[in-house]
Amino acid sequence: VSETIEKMLTDMLGGGGFHETLGMVLEGYDLEAGTVTVRLPWQIGFERLPGTKQWHGGPIASFIDLVGDAALMLKKGAAIPTIDLRIDYLRPAIATDLIATGRIVRAGRTVGLADVEVKDTEGRLIAVGRGTYAMGG
Amino acid sequence: VSETIEKMLTDMLGGGGFHETLGMVLEGYDLEAGTVTVRLPWQIGFERLPGTKQWHGGPIASFIDLVGDAALMLKKGAAIPTIDLRIDYLRPAIATDLIATGRIVRAGRTVGLADVEVKDTEGRLIAVGRGTYAMGG
Amino acid sequence: VSETIEKMLTDMLGGGGFHETLGMVLEGYDLEAGTVTVRLPWQIGFERLPGTKQWHGGPIASFIDLVGDAALMLKKGAAIPTIDLRIDYLRPAIATDLIATGRIVRAGRTVGLADVEVKDTEGRLIAVGRGTYAMGG
Amino acid sequence: VSETIEKMLTDMLGGGGFHETLGMVLEGYDLEAGTVTVRLPWQIGFERLPGTKQWHGGPIASFIDLVGDAALMLKKGAAIPTIDLRIDYLRPAIATDLIATGRIVRAGRTVGLADVEVKDTEGRLIAVGRGTYAMGG
Repeated sequence: VSETIEKMLTDMLGGGGFHETLGMVLEGYDLEAGTVTVRLPWQIGFERLPGTKQWHGGPIASFIDLVGDAALMLKKGAAIPTIDLRIDYLRPAIATDLIATGRIVRAGRTVGLADVEVKDTEGRLIAVGRGTYAMGG
Repeated sequence: VSETIEKMLTDMLGGGGFHETLGMVLEGYDLEAGTVTVRLPWQIGFERLPGTKQWHGGPIASFIDLVGDAALMLKKGAAIPTIDLRIDYLRPAIATDLIATGRIVRAGRTVGLADVEVKDTEGRLIAVGRGTYAMGG
Repeated sequence: VSETIEKMLTDMLGGGGFHETLGMVLEGYDLEAGTVTVRLPWQIGFERLPGTKQWHGGPIASFIDLVGDAALMLKKGAAIPTIDLRIDYLRPAIATDLIATGRIVRAGRTVGLADVEVKDTEGRLIAVGRGTYAMGG
Repeated sequence: VSETIEKMLTDMLGGGGFHETLGMVLEGYDLEAGTVTVRLPWQIGFERLPGTKQWHGGPIASFIDLVGDAALMLKKGAAIPTIDLRIDYLRPAIATDLIATGRIVRAGRTVGLADVEVKDTEGRLIAVGRGTYAMGG
């Protein structure tokens, strides 16, 4: 079973034009806890203002969307359209990989809710996100 | 004055690693109304699932963030850090440029609020967004 | 038809323990535009800090939730459970009735989205809200 | 010190017209963890549809707003205006007291972020909320 889940998550995270642009790497998952952890390596193409090496909020939002989706895939077994997404930016991240953990809050029949925390490699909280997803979609 | 504003917006939309990746184009602005309109041309690198030519939600979220920021720049005169961002995805967009209009809802001393509507080239509403920005940041 | 719609809205706004506590009054609706306008009269029991006569955010949030719901009832014909709700508070409101207009942004088969603007009696924007509702619920 | 904090929280939760209407009771707080736990006793005046004894979403939203505020008061030492508030409703709550725990996510100089979880007396998650607050306000 776990091989199938790992393959499903790896295929989703690596598949599609924009996913490849992001370059996400699956770090792990916990079926019992309903969590998935993913790494987003730093790229200069994700810079906010030229020369700052600060992460732009856009790739962070995209990353949060996908890691919340990945968590709910543990229940649904397939990629799930996002209904709405909310991001809170807490702290600038400079020239660091980002590590996000997505967690299922609720996996209903039609609507799922996931929470995501994004940290830098030193464990500082960079952003939090929460999204609703169309489980029947 | 308008030349300065146009330059400020063009510089922001075109500057920085991730902004260049997006490739946004300023379509216009209205200082009185507090609105800015921007085009995001379709790129295969923004595709959601391989072969669908459907826009991924990530670039749409990034686009909304930046167009809301651009609207508030009409008041602030400089790029503004995002505090939080909320996106509602309404309809898939397939192989089309996206046109977003950002509108100032409130430009306070410390917090600004902007609304953004994203449409396809046929005028269908694809997504709406709302963000708070740190005006003093 | 319009008599039925007015009765449906009046019944919803006036029915239920908490609705009666709020004391909302239907001001009008526009079936074509997908909008509903409702008045919430000032009550000292909605005060924030003692002696300020400032509206507490709680009744404003409740009001926004219900006016968004009322707008989507134009399509659905019945009260609709809220999935999620987002409120932005813009300006204190002091000892004034509140007037809210709810507008359908999207009425999907499973999920609906409504926008709500709350103004005081002088037309100043007090708060804006956006909610998703379970149309099949 | 703890007596002062308890008094501050009790005064806030019990003070003001709408706070008295709600009837909240402080259950506890943890200064280290940045959390505050509050009980909201069931009242028939908070009913959604007549005869259902189901909690209306409005009092739940108000409760979340105030418990998030209470958590940030641990840092700020005074009540804090809400900038924006987001609620996700997960499950109906029927004729039960509600217990909410608010937690500081970030207490910045100008903006604070708090998370709130609302459970029924059997520990089932009823709703989650997240709010930004004007720490300098």
